[in-house]
Amino acid sequence: MSDDPCLREEIHLLLDLRAVRDYAPDPVPQAALDDIYQVARWTGSAENRQPWDLIVVRDRAMLDRLGAFPGYADHLGTAPIGIVLVMDGSNEEYAAHDEGRLCERIMLAAAAHGLGSCIGWWNGEGREQARALLGAPPGSIVGAILPIGYPATGHRPMHEELLSGRKEPARKPIADFIRLERYDGERAADGG
Amino acid sequence: MSDDPCLREEIHLLLDLRAVRDYAPDPVPQAALDDIYQVARWTGSAENRQPWDLIVVRDRAMLDRLGAFPGYADHLGTAPIGIVLVMDGSNEEYAAHDEGRLCERIMLAAAAHGLGSCIGWWNGEGREQARALLGAPPGSIVGAILPIGYPATGHRPMHEELLSGRKEPARKPIADFIRLERYDGERAADGG
Repeated sequence: MSDDPCLREEIHLLLDLRAVRDYAPDPVPQAALDDIYQVARWTGSAENRQPWDLIVVRDRAMLDRLGAFPGYADHLGTAPIGIVLVMDGSNEEYAAHDEGRLCERIMLAAAAHGLGSCIGWWNGEGREQARALLGAPPGSIVGAILPIGYPATGHRPMHEELLSGRKEPARKPIADFIRLERYDGERAADGG
Repeated sequence: MSDDPCLREEIHLLLDLRAVRDYAPDPVPQAALDDIYQVARWTGSAENRQPWDLIVVRDRAMLDRLGAFPGYADHLGTAPIGIVLVMDGSNEEYAAHDEGRLCERIMLAAAAHGLGSCIGWWNGEGREQARALLGAPPGSIVGAILPIGYPATGHRPMHEELLSGRKEPARKPIADFIRLERYDGERAADGG
């Protein structure tokens, strides 16, 4: 066993991240943003290409316009900040994979500060509209925005709700998707 | 400021994750695997589709064969375990994005336990060969494997090496990629 006194807190940070779609109007402290920026900076990417720019949007009118573009970004709602991911479009598959890694890391850094998020998506014309409005280069992929804010209402981490029996599991049991040695192999034991 | 006594450790977990490609032969403790499985289980995905199966491979001969397929997986080398991501192939872009999120979460859960990893890739024929060898369904995407093991040699977190002046920065400065309000807007201050 590890003797790291923060091990359980670290694992719970990873376990407890879940979508927060309603935000309090309180501003995001600069200290939290500084951590988010550094964590974004150190996020790994295929071939260490770091194929991204981030646009940090606070302007309310801009956030409202971005939230209305086709896709699933209307939960930008009252978020005090939205962080737009501008991905290099020269390799779409790498871009989508690295975009997922960067989203995850930013949301976790925010969560460490008690801030919530939920990936907002643009699709179809929404991507081009967001790209044009933000002035991102033609050919770049502007598909995701991360609203960041304190949760509007207190929420309990999902696994605590599960343990308390208040919620149905929102995830597949471990034995359903973790397989040993081969796809048709034995399933991992479902401890929780 | 947060009064969470583990906040800095959590942020450093996120800052310090970096590729480990050489593994000690020591086995991965079951307690660490259990945390990895739970963290994988709770990883978010587009529309909560959880479009993945994981195959946990310990068999040395199997790992050696997987490491030799076309791509960048030869660092499977001496890793005691490789976790293969089998992604639902019905939406390739979602699959790549969710694959990135899941990789990140698994690597962070491993890192909380002091275990290293580095995403291994198959490309072209390598994906089909890995899929067939593991018996994953036709149409699924078998593109990534996460070797997990204790680092073979002590390593210092990258940001400590930077602070100590022993290494060139391996990442772009914040002011190079974090922009305020618009793509051509002011740049975020580079605190570190």
